Amino acid sequence: MDTLSATFFALADPTRRAILARLTKGETPVTELAAPFDMSLPAISKHLKVLERAGLIVRSRDAQWRPCRLEATRLREVHAWLDHYRRFWEESFDRLDDYLKELQEKEKKAHARKQSRK
Amino acid sequence: MDTLSATFFALADPTRRAILARLTKGETPVTELAAPFDMSLPAISKHLKVLERAGLIVRSRDAQWRPCRLEATRLREVHAWLDHYRRFWEESFDRLDDYLKELQEKEKKAHARKQSRK
Repeated sequence: MDTLSATFFALADPTRRAILARLTKGETPVTELAAPFDMSLPAISKHLKVLERAGLIVRSRDAQWRPCRLEATRLREVHAWLDHYRRFWEESFDRLDDYLKELQEKEKKAHARKQSRK
Repeated sequence: MDTLSATFFALADPTRRAILARLTKGETPVTELAAPFDMSLPAISKHLKVLERAGLIVRSRDAQWRPCRLEATRLREVHAWLDHYRRFWEESFDRLDDYLKELQEKEKKAHARKQSRK
């Protein structure tokens, strides 16, 4: 699997994303990572392996408790890929914005007409 | 599957990402989308179904040739999710930057020492 596909695949799971979110607070041992989940330690280990293979986390080789830490390079690559599409969601936001302004103008004019009739 | 997981899953394939890239040029009929790939039309249709279910593309119901177009809302959601991690890759870039500056300083000092010895 190419790097970007492996990254996206690893991110396509809410447990794995929750693990990444937890790691934003700093290096964490596996047992602590597993604690908030209603999952066996082997199940969590499997998720960690997917994240590790995708290069999204790094596990210490030295320490006996093998803490995990977030590795951001792959996320930067996703960000770079995503940036090619930025103009599309910004355009659709602009269109929504134009539409809302148009509605407001209509409201204002309708209100002005009412006032002039009084 | 939750929306974000479905989006990431749909993006975890190079053919599907290539289809999205093609759609940045505008609405495209399926046969045209399939042309650059060495794949059967049913295989391409399967990829389109994954993209459509994830909300990344929309297919026209009216036209007989059912053209596809890019739908950017889901990508905006990925961007918002990713933004929580921005400081991590920016920090690692800053660290690299500091290291390079340090190296340059050392080079300069070594050069100055050499010059003063002459």
